[in-house]
Amino acid sequence: GGFDSIAHAMTTISTGGFSTSDQSLAAFIPYGADMVCLVFMLAGALPFGVYLLMVQGKFAKAARNSQMQTFFILAFSLSVMMAFYLQFHFTNLEGGQDSDNMVWRLAAFNVVSIMTGTGFTSTDYSLWGSFAVAVFFIFMFIGGCAGSTACSVKIFRYQIAFKTLLVYLAKITWRHSVIPLKYEGKPLDENIVYSVMGFLVLFFLCFIVCALCLSFLGLDTLTAWSGAGSAIANVGPGLGDIIGPNGTYAAIPAAGKWVLSITMLIGRLEIVTVLVLFTPAFWSA
Amino acid sequence: GGFDSIAHAMTTISTGGFSTSDQSLAAFIPYGADMVCLVFMLAGALPFGVYLLMVQGKFAKAARNSQMQTFFILAFSLSVMMAFYLQFHFTNLEGGQDSDNMVWRLAAFNVVSIMTGTGFTSTDYSLWGSFAVAVFFIFMFIGGCAGSTACSVKIFRYQIAFKTLLVYLAKITWRHSVIPLKYEGKPLDENIVYSVMGFLVLFFLCFIVCALCLSFLGLDTLTAWSGAGSAIANVGPGLGDIIGPNGTYAAIPAAGKWVLSITMLIGRLEIVTVLVLFTPAFWSA
Repeated sequence: GGFDSIAHAMTTISTGGFSTSDQSLAAFIPYGADMVCLVFMLAGALPFGVYLLMVQGKFAKAARNSQMQTFFILAFSLSVMMAFYLQFHFTNLEGGQDSDNMVWRLAAFNVVSIMTGTGFTSTDYSLWGSFAVAVFFIFMFIGGCAGSTACSVKIFRYQIAFKTLLVYLAKITWRHSVIPLKYEGKPLDENIVYSVMGFLVLFFLCFIVCALCLSFLGLDTLTAWSGAGSAIANVGPGLGDIIGPNGTYAAIPAAGKWVLSITMLIGRLEIVTVLVLFTPAFWSA
Repeated sequence: GGFDSIAHAMTTISTGGFSTSDQSLAAFIPYGADMVCLVFMLAGALPFGVYLLMVQGKFAKAARNSQMQTFFILAFSLSVMMAFYLQFHFTNLEGGQDSDNMVWRLAAFNVVSIMTGTGFTSTDYSLWGSFAVAVFFIFMFIGGCAGSTACSVKIFRYQIAFKTLLVYLAKITWRHSVIPLKYEGKPLDENIVYSVMGFLVLFFLCFIVCALCLSFLGLDTLTAWSGAGSAIANVGPGLGDIIGPNGTYAAIPAAGKWVLSITMLIGRLEIVTVLVLFTPAFWSA
């Protein structure tokens, strides 16, 4: 329908994830809407800077964006991994649509949706076993690229944390070496490393505090922890029977909704790190 | 009995946590053994350096050890918090021993046992509700002081991460200020900050990989994640029905036992960080 199409188009490109159906995108699979959304969820999670470069006609430079490359590699490899897991573990998916095509489609759509924090679901992946639950829980903390509408930790922070780790490991081996830390070909100021580390510590601290508050209010372990993760990363669906892909937050007590709301705001505003991102040092160094 | 006493004395002071009874320390509560163990678990988690200072007669200097102070403050405040939670949430503990005294005793013993990674239990705290489950899960990652037999992340790393975070937050407010990072009155070399951050990233990475492997082998979510945490932090008991305080690892499939064994070794050897701790820069700076 016209309204459904417009609503989904807007919520897909903004990685928002509100559907006009209680079943989310599962209701629109027959129309192929999930594949359209998949493309635009990926597009919505790319940095705006890349689009600016493309508008300016600098396609080669846009393609060299290391954050975008890492994002695509991650999205692709994690979807493939999930699809193989599904084929390995299940011979029958619910609804009888167990063709190979469907396995790949369900895996790719749900992985990208949770990873970018869009929060659409096209099936109840919490029925895929505890490995899928663990994996979807971790995917919530990936996020899209910095400079997009996606939330969560974001690719560039993982890149910087990973590079810092590699330099640290190299320094242990070659004690007195001087190894420059670079990102996108530019040297990384140590303040940026500190800001990333500070963000990670604060982010996971807020996540743990939120999970503790929710547990204290009597929610079960999986609901409390996945709800907290979903809130801080601005994903949407959690895991478990209550707030899982086929559930809603309606049953959460009012105090829990307050805790989740505050956590979502903290996650969306990225605490203090948003300030650091706007310092000239980060982008012009 | 004589053998029980000797076995528990040795496993308490080494924060090992092997009991001669399947019920762990619950079997010895009538003898007051849990209170004796509590004192020596705390003693076992203090840094050896403090004992060296005390042997040298420098009691004032030993008492100023900031790691030891933080450890005692944490152990005390977390035990008090847990005791208040228990009194608030339960009017009846199992066994009918629901005197106030017993609540404090159970809370303090189990909190200190899990926090120091000793791994004794004096009751099945997984029956204390999802808040207690969440809290005991987090306690596994505290650990004792560096320079003790305790494992896990350890107090000094949290101290350094916390101080780094404070300096980072202060620098956002006062952009061009120079704020020295100090620990135990000595300036902190940035390599130590990197080594702590590197350790934290590697530690939680190993934890997540182990949890994923265990989920993949078909263990339920709580067993997989708490088992992974218990292994990397060398605690002992996990959470849930299978490996919880009253359970054993006997039911875990063989492949899962291999994963857990490797994770325990990685956790015990502290990956690469043990190397950095032995550099003169850390202790003599």
